Amino acid sequence: MAEIAKILVLNGPNLNMLGVRQPEIYGSDTLADIEQRCHAHAKKYEFDIDFRQSNIEGELVTWIQEERTRCQGVIINAAAFTHTSVAILDALSLLDVPVIEVHLSNIFAREEFRHHSYVSPVAAGVICGFGWRGYTLALDALKDILDSD
Amino acid sequence: MAEIAKILVLNGPNLNMLGVRQPEIYGSDTLADIEQRCHAHAKKYEFDIDFRQSNIEGELVTWIQEERTRCQGVIINAAAFTHTSVAILDALSLLDVPVIEVHLSNIFAREEFRHHSYVSPVAAGVICGFGWRGYTLALDALKDILDSD
Amino acid sequence: MAEIAKILVLNGPNLNMLGVRQPEIYGSDTLADIEQRCHAHAKKYEFDIDFRQSNIEGELVTWIQEERTRCQGVIINAAAFTHTSVAILDALSLLDVPVIEVHLSNIFAREEFRHHSYVSPVAAGVICGFGWRGYTLALDALKDILDSD
Amino acid sequence: MAEIAKILVLNGPNLNMLGVRQPEIYGSDTLADIEQRCHAHAKKYEFDIDFRQSNIEGELVTWIQEERTRCQGVIINAAAFTHTSVAILDALSLLDVPVIEVHLSNIFAREEFRHHSYVSPVAAGVICGFGWRGYTLALDALKDILDSD
Amino acid sequence: MAEIAKILVLNGPNLNMLGVRQPEIYGSDTLADIEQRCHAHAKKYEFDIDFRQSNIEGELVTWIQEERTRCQGVIINAAAFTHTSVAILDALSLLDVPVIEVHLSNIFAREEFRHHSYVSPVAAGVICGFGWRGYTLALDALKDILDSD
Amino acid sequence: MAEIAKILVLNGPNLNMLGVRQPEIYGSDTLADIEQRCHAHAKKYEFDIDFRQSNIEGELVTWIQEERTRCQGVIINAAAFTHTSVAILDALSLLDVPVIEVHLSNIFAREEFRHHSYVSPVAAGVICGFGWRGYTLALDALKDILDSD
Amino acid sequence: MAEIAKILVLNGPNLNMLGVRQPEIYGSDTLADIEQRCHAHAKKYEFDIDFRQSNIEGELVTWIQEERTRCQGVIINAAAFTHTSVAILDALSLLDVPVIEVHLSNIFAREEFRHHSYVSPVAAGVICGFGWRGYTLALDALKDILDSD
Amino acid sequence: MAEIAKILVLNGPNLNMLGVRQPEIYGSDTLADIEQRCHAHAKKYEFDIDFRQSNIEGELVTWIQEERTRCQGVIINAAAFTHTSVAILDALSLLDVPVIEVHLSNIFAREEFRHHSYVSPVAAGVICGFGWRGYTLALDALKDILDSD
Amino acid sequence: MAEIAKILVLNGPNLNMLGVRQPEIYGSDTLADIEQRCHAHAKKYEFDIDFRQSNIEGELVTWIQEERTRCQGVIINAAAFTHTSVAILDALSLLDVPVIEVHLSNIFAREEFRHHSYVSPVAAGVICGFGWRGYTLALDALKDILDSD
Amino acid sequence: MAEIAKILVLNGPNLNMLGVRQPEIYGSDTLADIEQRCHAHAKKYEFDIDFRQSNIEGELVTWIQEERTRCQGVIINAAAFTHTSVAILDALSLLDVPVIEVHLSNIFAREEFRHHSYVSPVAAGVICGFGWRGYTLALDALKDILDSD
Amino acid sequence: MAEIAKILVLNGPNLNMLGVRQPEIYGSDTLADIEQRCHAHAKKYEFDIDFRQSNIEGELVTWIQEERTRCQGVIINAAAFTHTSVAILDALSLLDVPVIEVHLSNIFAREEFRHHSYVSPVAAGVICGFGWRGYTLALDALKDILDSD
Amino acid sequence: MAEIAKILVLNGPNLNMLGVRQPEIYGSDTLADIEQRCHAHAKKYEFDIDFRQSNIEGELVTWIQEERTRCQGVIINAAAFTHTSVAILDALSLLDVPVIEVHLSNIFAREEFRHHSYVSPVAAGVICGFGWRGYTLALDALKDILDSD
Repeated sequence: MAEIAKILVLNGPNLNMLGVRQPEIYGSDTLADIEQRCHAHAKKYEFDIDFRQSNIEGELVTWIQEERTRCQGVIINAAAFTHTSVAILDALSLLDVPVIEVHLSNIFAREEFRHHSYVSPVAAGVICGFGWRGYTLALDALKDILDSD
Repeated sequence: MAEIAKILVLNGPNLNMLGVRQPEIYGSDTLADIEQRCHAHAKKYEFDIDFRQSNIEGELVTWIQEERTRCQGVIINAAAFTHTSVAILDALSLLDVPVIEVHLSNIFAREEFRHHSYVSPVAAGVICGFGWRGYTLALDALKDILDSD
Repeated sequence: MAEIAKILVLNGPNLNMLGVRQPEIYGSDTLADIEQRCHAHAKKYEFDIDFRQSNIEGELVTWIQEERTRCQGVIINAAAFTHTSVAILDALSLLDVPVIEVHLSNIFAREEFRHHSYVSPVAAGVICGFGWRGYTLALDALKDILDSD
Repeated sequence: MAEIAKILVLNGPNLNMLGVRQPEIYGSDTLADIEQRCHAHAKKYEFDIDFRQSNIEGELVTWIQEERTRCQGVIINAAAFTHTSVAILDALSLLDVPVIEVHLSNIFAREEFRHHSYVSPVAAGVICGFGWRGYTLALDALKDILDSD
Repeated sequence: MAEIAKILVLNGPNLNMLGVRQPEIYGSDTLADIEQRCHAHAKKYEFDIDFRQSNIEGELVTWIQEERTRCQGVIINAAAFTHTSVAILDALSLLDVPVIEVHLSNIFAREEFRHHSYVSPVAAGVICGFGWRGYTLALDALKDILDSD
Repeated sequence: MAEIAKILVLNGPNLNMLGVRQPEIYGSDTLADIEQRCHAHAKKYEFDIDFRQSNIEGELVTWIQEERTRCQGVIINAAAFTHTSVAILDALSLLDVPVIEVHLSNIFAREEFRHHSYVSPVAAGVICGFGWRGYTLALDALKDILDSD
Repeated sequence: MAEIAKILVLNGPNLNMLGVRQPEIYGSDTLADIEQRCHAHAKKYEFDIDFRQSNIEGELVTWIQEERTRCQGVIINAAAFTHTSVAILDALSLLDVPVIEVHLSNIFAREEFRHHSYVSPVAAGVICGFGWRGYTLALDALKDILDSD
Repeated sequence: MAEIAKILVLNGPNLNMLGVRQPEIYGSDTLADIEQRCHAHAKKYEFDIDFRQSNIEGELVTWIQEERTRCQGVIINAAAFTHTSVAILDALSLLDVPVIEVHLSNIFAREEFRHHSYVSPVAAGVICGFGWRGYTLALDALKDILDSD
Repeated sequence: MAEIAKILVLNGPNLNMLGVRQPEIYGSDTLADIEQRCHAHAKKYEFDIDFRQSNIEGELVTWIQEERTRCQGVIINAAAFTHTSVAILDALSLLDVPVIEVHLSNIFAREEFRHHSYVSPVAAGVICGFGWRGYTLALDALKDILDSD
Repeated sequence: MAEIAKILVLNGPNLNMLGVRQPEIYGSDTLADIEQRCHAHAKKYEFDIDFRQSNIEGELVTWIQEERTRCQGVIINAAAFTHTSVAILDALSLLDVPVIEVHLSNIFAREEFRHHSYVSPVAAGVICGFGWRGYTLALDALKDILDSD
Repeated sequence: MAEIAKILVLNGPNLNMLGVRQPEIYGSDTLADIEQRCHAHAKKYEFDIDFRQSNIEGELVTWIQEERTRCQGVIINAAAFTHTSVAILDALSLLDVPVIEVHLSNIFAREEFRHHSYVSPVAAGVICGFGWRGYTLALDALKDILDSD
Repeated sequence: MAEIAKILVLNGPNLNMLGVRQPEIYGSDTLADIEQRCHAHAKKYEFDIDFRQSNIEGELVTWIQEERTRCQGVIINAAAFTHTSVAILDALSLLDVPVIEVHLSNIFAREEFRHHSYVSPVAAGVICGFGWRGYTLALDALKDILDSD
């Protein structure tokens, strides 16, 4: 795989508020900082990062549909939609490219209703609890998966 | 009922991707094909079909609200929202016209969470498992209900 | 498929009492009326309707077994047995022909225990809530399935 | 109500074995003894007792259907079917006459699955734990209900 | 058993309001009327009725304790405490005399939480759904149990 | 409604300890302070406040019964009994006047077992989380309901 | 135990269809083949095999009742009724002779609702997953139990 | 707190249909009427009301985010989203200002699934069942909370 | 801690019947005997025992409230109220002194509903299954806790 | 299959105590007796029995791993580990040879938590309730399975 | 009982780490300190303490088996195995001597999964929440039980 | 942190069988290969990898205890123990160093009982579904966490 691969990085509701509040919990990085880090990290893999955020479930669904034949991999932090959206599950099921689920915090150490994810069954793998680092770890993992195809 | 009746046909998230993928499961028809079939089938009943699709729950809610006094019947395949949307249930509860729930596949033969529908309690009837034919069967049923009023 | 196809229409317990009581809920049609309508409707499809009713679970099981190689499709309204009979599920599993599940009323708008059906997982499709019309819709659907084989 | 009222007394599976085994638990009376007692007790009320037993759910359903316009009241000890038969519930729902549910033993002091009854919701009342006396108490209660109509 | 037997008839919370409200549901009899009927009915059995009502769980518990060696039988309509009181269950467990549970209405046709009774496991039998008649039926049943000892 | 309306304000177990302990959580007001505030607030509405507290479920039940025809509205903070008392539910069901449920703290942000209330289904409305202010808001709401009758 | 012992072998619904369909799953043996094998195997034990099948729950119940004093042991493959029939449980409870539960397939590796058996609590032992061999193993086990009495 | 405080009043899906249908249940006030009442009521507190409605979950999330530093309090009637939206819960968790949850009807006297609220755990208090009055009661409560800070 | 410490020993419903019945299960000691043993045992610790019993939940609540600043420790055997009383839980939560929960029998070897205790979460420790000895063990434990403060 | 087949017979915790206690329940045979019987029974099949017992879950796991290519079949009575060990399930999943699950007693007639087995889903078949005979029946079954391969 | 009684004191996983970490929660005592205290306390009762700890479930099982006829009583703090080990339950069931369950902390005030104990049903009694003192209280209780035999 | 950090890498039951069977699912790498990769990957971080595997729960517990002050981080793939071991949870709770949970496969796409992990609540983060790459990603993550301390 010598060509540049497009990687869609999707972020769910409220992630646009990162760094703004409770930095002691979520870190002081803003979502823009994370996007920056993804771009930087992606360079060595010749990945082209398409980094987006939406508070609207349907917009995320549409993006997944639109990019399904244009990208080589998806990293998704669906945030609150992780636990409630069958629509995103169905959209991700349409994909032939690998999907990696990322969460900034360890969702298994939070409220009971955050332990269930509609995304997990269709994800190649799950990474949670490592803050922004989860995104770059996901890029590493994606590189590996794409190379091994 | 001699006049032309307007029938609102609503389609939920990811149905715009029909025919594009897994045709062995969902058939090779696209949503446009189904719309076409509905228009063709509606002719004999003098039904005016208003066929729409959205990935956004709120848009479907708004359409139901807007058309509530302008249509004589609703056929809804809420797809993933079937299982998660109380808002669509509430919007449909506003209607005085009959609502028919349609699903392309047999949702009772799929994952456990797809066995529950928020739409069913306010639907006149449910049709599932017959692919695109479910829509024309629903038109037949609607014709019958409207004639018997 | 030019030949006449035999369609087995099975009715479960208490359906023989249709029209006799609470016509405001179940309609004034008797089961004989519904049978009549099925025969009339079947003519255009060259279907030969074998219409039966039993209050005995085992009799329904035996009928399914006996007709399994003699019919081209089954329409079943298992009534109360829908929710309690694993034996009917097992008998229907023996069939190679399509099975369509029909209910006169919308079982999803009734008591909780009527929301579960042992028949659904082995049915090609489900139609409920349309009264006697559910049977003729099922014939339409069956015609379509048989033609597409 | 001066005329003779016909009372249907229905007994479910295994009640024909009463008195044959474990008399220390169920008493030494046979079902014939209980029938005898019902006839004797019914005399003072000018009740005509139609006393039946079946091990077959569908037979009980049919009897309820057939006698629905011929009897003025029903006493039913559905035994094991109490906990499993939706068909009997549906048949009893067809009746306009009062239904009284009887159990020889106190079902609430037995296994968990015997605590739920499909019959109770459509019964005027429930009597359990008094052995054969439950039947005559039910006749007393039925007399009272019929007189107060 | 030639002597006069003392029968304790216990009534739980809100039963003192009988006849005052919703007579179409609970009947127009007051609790005093029911007591009167019990006294009248008890005469033929030479039962001495001790008829009491309390809104206080602990008072009912104390009465059961105090009368445990002074009465030959207990009829209890624990009303709301039926569903919540382990203390009454424990008090009734102290008794060597038969206990009969009575309910005016058919509790199995009401809210889910009224389907469970803490009293039933220690009752000889249960009678419910027959209004005030349940008390006199219970006296009949008690007479029978005491005679057969 | 020009006359003075009597409003019964009922307080359940342990509310007599308000202000004595953990003022940082429940506020430093005692129940007497709250009663005082209710009297002050009631003046403008010409409400006559009858303010009571009991640790005994049965006493609350009796008060509701006794005052049912003497008061025009009830405000109840059943405290712990909220979650365990069917008897209070039944007593409140006897009332023809509006009932308002009040809680000092937000019970939905506390232990799971405090999320269920037996009072809510028979209350006109629920107010929780506003400390003593909940009582005066309830008076405001009651005024409004009574005026709109 | 020198005499010939009669062994009742009961088969539930749909077992009469064995060998007819899906032989790759259930084997190519018909129920007649299994009966034949039982007779052959029984010879060495001087067992007299009474081998029956019914699709009707009540018929199985009646057979158990009728043979209760005529047979020395029961082998039962209740098939679908295993999971739904309290009536068969009650009938088997009448027996003083040992009961052995047999299933052709390993029911614990199938759908969740097949993991519960109403028969097991009254069976001496359970054998499942060995196809027709389960019947002869059951005969071996029965021989052993009868000899050790 | 002498300055004018901005209060964000958020309304979820279908609330824009208020007054249009079933006025006997929800009252004849439209949402515009309620807004009007809030403005009128807010005057005495020098509150500046920002009153909005949306059928789109994500739009409500975005509004909460945008106004989080511009308003001094939030009143939210999330309607159907109350029971399904983790995203709104997460957005509200970002706020440092008090949030009050309002419902027009008593949600605890409706369907089971409406008894759970994702909003309640992050609300200062909850007011439900008082129709439009709930909004002005919430303003009163908010005034009190802001003054006591 | 040289002074005499007052220890409140509370006993719930039916414990006043100890020794009167089923001595083979609960022992032949009466509650008076246990009180006697507590007084005897308390001497070496200079504990002043205030030993009480009530069948009324609210009385126990009131005693806990009244003695909260007058005692140095509480031993409570809430008996049946253990499993049903949130009011006692709330009253005990008011205390600053250690609470020890005692049960005569091993509640974990009894009915399922006795496995849950509302008292345990606010108790320093739990002792069950040792009969009257549980009370003196609790005194030992209390001595130890008070000395270590 | 003319060669000698090695059969691994694994026994879980506490089975080494067989015969030592409660012989009226578990029989008077020790595990050594059962081993002896297996060796005797195996002779006719030319099976080489490797009979082991361990109280340590991990040791059983290791044995399964080590013998996986050295044995032709496994008989396992995992005793208590049956209900708690996912590790043994995973180890057994590694095997290509048939596994037969054996239990001395009928686990379905014991405590609820013994009704679930982690072993069953990967077993070819299950035999329970026949005491030591279960082992020799398992050898018979294994012989049959190996011969039919 | 004049002879020296051997008491087996068993400690489950991680108890060997006591005192090493979080002394503010579990106290600063090491397990050796607790053993020391047990020896000191046992002197007055002429108890011979055999104090052991293991992180391996099977080792605890084996110790219970080996000492079953050599000791007169068992005190067990199974720690984490309390909630997961059926094997220890089965081993303890083999004992004829009394078993006392001890926990350092109040397990009922911790995570939900720590509220269930497999040990409790076979323990004579349970002591929890008193730190190391629980062991000496258990010795006191054991002395009492042994003396009363 | 310039010094070499010791990283404990723990592997649970059956992971020693990696690569031996079903390489199409788990990959063809053996555990030795993964250890090799960890050593190679660790070099750049100056990590000293201590790589171990055990089938015995207690051995893993002991290793965690022993290394708790000797290592700077733990990577654990507890395999089957993930879902059943409270003892490992308790041992990990003793650690002050970061713990990372790794799984080769996506456990959320497997059986229901594998969706719950006792390890997750005490892990800094979770990585699953990436095969052996999960270990090196965990090393990357650990490097990051240690550097940021």
